Amino acid sequence: MENSRLKSFIPLFYLVWSDDLLTQKEFITLQEFIRSQNWLTKEEQEELLSKIDISVPPSREQLTSWKLEIEKSIQEKKSVKSIYDIVVALSGDDKSLTELEPVFAKLENDLGVFGQEAIGTFKKTATSLTSNYKTESSFDTKILTEILDGEEAAIIKRVKSVISKPEFAYETSTDINVYRVKVFEWCKILAKENFGNMAYPKQYGGGDNIADYFAIMETLSYHDLSLVIKFGVQFGLWGMSVQSLGTEKHYSKYLKDIGSLKLPGCFAMTETHHGSNVKGLETTATYNHENQTFTIHTPNKNAQKEYIGNAAVHGQMATVFAKLIINDVDYGVNAFVVPLRDTNGVNIKGVTIGDCGHKMGLNGVDNGTISFDNVVIPKENMLDRFASVNDKGEFESPIPSDNRRFFTMLGTLVGGRIGIPRSALAAAKSGLAITIRYSDQRRQFGPEGGSEVPILNYRMHQRRLIPQLAKTYAVHFALQYLTNRFLNKKESEMQEIEALAAGMKSYSTWSTRDILQECREACGGKGYLSENRIDALKNDTEIYTTFEGDNTVLMQLVAKNRLSEFRKSFGEMGAVGIINYVYENAKTAISEKNPIATRKTEDAHLLDNEFHLLAFQHREKTTLASAAKRIKKLIDSGLEPYDAFNVVQHQMIDVAQAYLERIVLEQFQIAIETVKDVNVKEILSKLCHLYALAQIEKNKGWYLEDGYMEAVKTKAIRKMVNQLCWDIRPDAVALVNAFDIPESCLAAPIIE
Amino acid sequence: MENSRLKSFIPLFYLVWSDDLLTQKEFITLQEFIRSQNWLTKEEQEELLSKIDISVPPSREQLTSWKLEIEKSIQEKKSVKSIYDIVVALSGDDKSLTELEPVFAKLENDLGVFGQEAIGTFKKTATSLTSNYKTESSFDTKILTEILDGEEAAIIKRVKSVISKPEFAYETSTDINVYRVKVFEWCKILAKENFGNMAYPKQYGGGDNIADYFAIMETLSYHDLSLVIKFGVQFGLWGMSVQSLGTEKHYSKYLKDIGSLKLPGCFAMTETHHGSNVKGLETTATYNHENQTFTIHTPNKNAQKEYIGNAAVHGQMATVFAKLIINDVDYGVNAFVVPLRDTNGVNIKGVTIGDCGHKMGLNGVDNGTISFDNVVIPKENMLDRFASVNDKGEFESPIPSDNRRFFTMLGTLVGGRIGIPRSALAAAKSGLAITIRYSDQRRQFGPEGGSEVPILNYRMHQRRLIPQLAKTYAVHFALQYLTNRFLNKKESEMQEIEALAAGMKSYSTWSTRDILQECREACGGKGYLSENRIDALKNDTEIYTTFEGDNTVLMQLVAKNRLSEFRKSFGEMGAVGIINYVYENAKTAISEKNPIATRKTEDAHLLDNEFHLLAFQHREKTTLASAAKRIKKLIDSGLEPYDAFNVVQHQMIDVAQAYLERIVLEQFQIAIETVKDVNVKEILSKLCHLYALAQIEKNKGWYLEDGYMEAVKTKAIRKMVNQLCWDIRPDAVALVNAFDIPESCLAAPIIE
Repeated sequence: MENSRLKSFIPLFYLVWSDDLLTQKEFITLQEFIRSQNWLTKEEQEELLSKIDISVPPSREQLTSWKLEIEKSIQEKKSVKSIYDIVVALSGDDKSLTELEPVFAKLENDLGVFGQEAIGTFKKTATSLTSNYKTESSFDTKILTEILDGEEAAIIKRVKSVISKPEFAYETSTDINVYRVKVFEWCKILAKENFGNMAYPKQYGGGDNIADYFAIMETLSYHDLSLVIKFGVQFGLWGMSVQSLGTEKHYSKYLKDIGSLKLPGCFAMTETHHGSNVKGLETTATYNHENQTFTIHTPNKNAQKEYIGNAAVHGQMATVFAKLIINDVDYGVNAFVVPLRDTNGVNIKGVTIGDCGHKMGLNGVDNGTISFDNVVIPKENMLDRFASVNDKGEFESPIPSDNRRFFTMLGTLVGGRIGIPRSALAAAKSGLAITIRYSDQRRQFGPEGGSEVPILNYRMHQRRLIPQLAKTYAVHFALQYLTNRFLNKKESEMQEIEALAAGMKSYSTWSTRDILQECREACGGKGYLSENRIDALKNDTEIYTTFEGDNTVLMQLVAKNRLSEFRKSFGEMGAVGIINYVYENAKTAISEKNPIATRKTEDAHLLDNEFHLLAFQHREKTTLASAAKRIKKLIDSGLEPYDAFNVVQHQMIDVAQAYLERIVLEQFQIAIETVKDVNVKEILSKLCHLYALAQIEKNKGWYLEDGYMEAVKTKAIRKMVNQLCWDIRPDAVALVNAFDIPESCLAAPIIE
Repeated sequence: MENSRLKSFIPLFYLVWSDDLLTQKEFITLQEFIRSQNWLTKEEQEELLSKIDISVPPSREQLTSWKLEIEKSIQEKKSVKSIYDIVVALSGDDKSLTELEPVFAKLENDLGVFGQEAIGTFKKTATSLTSNYKTESSFDTKILTEILDGEEAAIIKRVKSVISKPEFAYETSTDINVYRVKVFEWCKILAKENFGNMAYPKQYGGGDNIADYFAIMETLSYHDLSLVIKFGVQFGLWGMSVQSLGTEKHYSKYLKDIGSLKLPGCFAMTETHHGSNVKGLETTATYNHENQTFTIHTPNKNAQKEYIGNAAVHGQMATVFAKLIINDVDYGVNAFVVPLRDTNGVNIKGVTIGDCGHKMGLNGVDNGTISFDNVVIPKENMLDRFASVNDKGEFESPIPSDNRRFFTMLGTLVGGRIGIPRSALAAAKSGLAITIRYSDQRRQFGPEGGSEVPILNYRMHQRRLIPQLAKTYAVHFALQYLTNRFLNKKESEMQEIEALAAGMKSYSTWSTRDILQECREACGGKGYLSENRIDALKNDTEIYTTFEGDNTVLMQLVAKNRLSEFRKSFGEMGAVGIINYVYENAKTAISEKNPIATRKTEDAHLLDNEFHLLAFQHREKTTLASAAKRIKKLIDSGLEPYDAFNVVQHQMIDVAQAYLERIVLEQFQIAIETVKDVNVKEILSKLCHLYALAQIEKNKGWYLEDGYMEAVKTKAIRKMVNQLCWDIRPDAVALVNAFDIPESCLAAPIIE
């Protein structure tokens, strides 16, 4: 093909024979094209057609030589952008071809080929924005770590040094008996370090430091999560139930041995038929005045205690929740210390213990069932801080309502709803550390002729991981806030703090569930191998969304609390207050819901903290008011309140979610304000913006329905989320390094 | 308190001392209220105040007697709806109290109490809509089962009868060696039943029935999923690679022994450093003309084959994908049969096999790594359907392009992308069967004084499960469609079918991932116990989103295919076509995007199949056109095509998603049209409406941004989704029963 006009078809021949998106149909398109070119003679047309006869493919050598010819001709010609440009290049810049430009442009169209894309095939040394992008940290990770650890830095360091010791090498046996023994041994070491009794009063050997206890729980969660749960069952649930529900006589008798793990025990609340609805527990504790004892009894199979940690193997005693019966009168659920096994591990008479067997995760924890067949315990074993039986055999309590007494008792145990979300947070940090570091190293695909690209450079990969990283930082500060509220609680704040803890427990554990799912998929096949630990992290935390209160049930409680607060504040407001509220909302309408604001898309506005917080607050207020209105309407229309609340359950979740998101954003913003280091402040601000905008994007349907934003704005927010992911990516590795998780805990071969 | 006016405060006393949402603050509210009531004398005020002195609580007996008094007074008075109504009832209908009505109404407000809710506390025999709702099937499950099974009913029945035999009792050992042996034994039984070779040609002992083979894969998936994958590796990947890539000489030599499991083998494609980007495989097959052999070699550690099923223990041979090198020229990736072990299980010289060890799931499959150190195989071991080395030692292929040849080879293996989503579907069905049946039995909470309610009656619980049930039905019919397209494929449709399979593989496996997550949480603690099988279902299918192609990567491919089709159809259209397209869109604007349509919320419209399909099609067309436009704009602005595609990755996922959702809805609608039984048609239509509306609800942000719907409509859709969940609930158990999964396969103690 010496004729330069015939030569101009070479790129088409090459593409049609090699591109994997072109099919038989395109051969026909090309044939028709050739036949319709009047400037070609019949013979030329025939010669050209012979090159694209599907029954006579060119040889591989022919194809290769075409490719080489094209490559040579366009080498170093940056201006080559379409098939026509190649044609020109091949012809040695034959000016007479100009007339063919529209013809080839049309053909590109007909073939469905992007000229520029097709040309990629011939560029050998292709490079690109995407492939050149890489890890480049903009801040000092040490400073960020100090900010994260805060006042707990010392205890965090101590815990890390212990769990990094050789004896804490992970147990890899799949035999749950081996695993359970190992976890118990680890707990003993931790007890010796005085980690377990950290929250107990000093006079019983404790450290009197609840803040440190929570920090220990969280830091231990970088290691094996069965260990954390076993630790939490023993020192938190079992020990703290004695401390919170018992009195002096119980403290002096039990706390020291619990803290040293000499006395392993359980927290026996849940029954097979009563988990979420613990008020309905059926186990009974019947008082016998003649011999000053209680008889603990399981009335039917479904009233057995179930899922009880420490029960199947190690527990010697348990705090048992049971309905107190005196003279056939039911005084509601109370707590009793009941022995399960003697020190030789032999069951106490009347106690039957089952093994929950293999679980999805946490197989180092010996969960079991417990049934009681008229087990008699002395009167002093009643944990009698909130209720007791007096010398006359009469019930006594400073809280006359059984209902309120029970919820007061539960309220004292709210610490568990702080420990669990903090443990979940640590697991999310581990997952992200493994996944982001791997994604920075793992290369796959790349521009034609260029080298493969770290998968963290792919926008979808960033989308999957970087908003989750931002959320993890946000949750970190929100849990700090929750912990501080709890540590400095006043009696009058207890309901609010309980609701906050219930909500943050759900928020954090669901967040961890989602994050570890992304981590698993983002690590591909490597994420499926147990050695890389996503398996354990994911399966161990899977139950976090259920225990310490089913998340969905807790979210309903949070929403009910918000609703009740809302009604009260409405009540307190009185007429003037309501006018003010309406006025406030009208102000919102003017300042935030005017066409200028709802369509505002400048970067400065989209990245404005105040815009974010106002948007979150608006959603919080509006969902709450709307749920309240709807419930009232349903009841007014004749529905039973119970049914009305059922109808709005879905909305109630939104109410709780909007409240929690506002808290999380607000606390993240407040925390950043106090940061002094400019670079750290900068990157944290980026994360905070990303957290805010990613939530708004998730809720964009709501914002559009509400009219708070218009389409132009939500679309701009989507682009900004993408941009922030891209901007944060070079810092992503440093951001997970700032978690400062011991390498021996991460222990994933993929990041070695 | 004889004075009836004083008596009127009893309900308030009771509430303030017992309600768990009222706090200290409300005591103050109540005190202030009492002090402000001028109709009370000072003495009366003092007496009332004494009842709510926080330091002197009433006795429990006092509280109980108040409660009894109230209960007695309002017994059988249905009209009692507020605290004021109780007050009147307590007074014996003292008409003089009328003046107090607004006073008490205000107090209710100030306390943040809903009168009607508070009254629930006193109604002993409360019943409600929610508690009376229950399972009541509206159709004959047998007829629905027949529709689901269709023409495959016979083979499905045969497979079920085999896997229900005692020898198929689940293996509960956590020792992977025990488990692997058991799975291998099971495979042998299945081979004897001629299930494995079902798709092979009759002349090699097969059943020549691909449709049955897929039905076998799906039905086996009701049983252990390690078994399904081991089965699929042996008979599907290993056997079908020989059948699809080899020629007569390979069929006669291997197929019979593969089908009988006499010759266990592997499919060795993935390497440590090349999973998604298989074109980049590094293993080499170097041709030696002098002795007519190939030397298979692993050039570096990261080029080892990884995750290879059947490799760690049982495989004796493998189809190995390697770059063919002849005289230092690289001819791209080709396939070779390479021996791994002799019949005694001893490795062939030069072959090093590693064990992937414990995995998140599928631990009955022996995944391993394989490295080759210059392993020599005879020339005939090249699977030479698409390429071969001729007698002169020259490369030959009917497909000159290495790239296209490789994708053609991969295309013949598309069957795996049908088997896997069908297996995922079966796992979702199992999970839903266990969870929905459990949720129908499990009771928790209930109206005050009433019995506890099946958790499936709770709206949130319905929301979590019933749309997933609808989606599972939808995916069932879509996978039937995919299978039929594949079975009746023409050459010209291959690209479309490959894209459809890649897409449906992602759609179905992600759907299963989400469904099993909901199942786990919806079953609470019981869902965490391995015995109830959500564990295995969830962890085994977890890798389905990665293997046979990472879902995110596949979705990009699907979108690219759609984009290329879009460009071609634009090209073909020519000027007239484009005008028509614009005109079509203008018609959409008039018929679907006018203010009447975008605000239409009548039930008949919301439940109209045509509305659903038009909405899905609109989204499909619009996302596609918008992505095409955006890419063009980015490239025109100077971005490299590679970078431009990276920027729009997120949008590309939407393109693929919208396409798949349209396919799934369309096929569900088409399938329902053919149903004759009225009741079955009715319930399937409800499911189809729910599927459609739940997807629109999920995408409502998009529809609002696009202007296809206004807020009033998306809100109406949310309500309709809730309503459909409620309406379908009585049939939910029958709908999972219609899957007709053997009880021995479900095998979850919670539904015994």
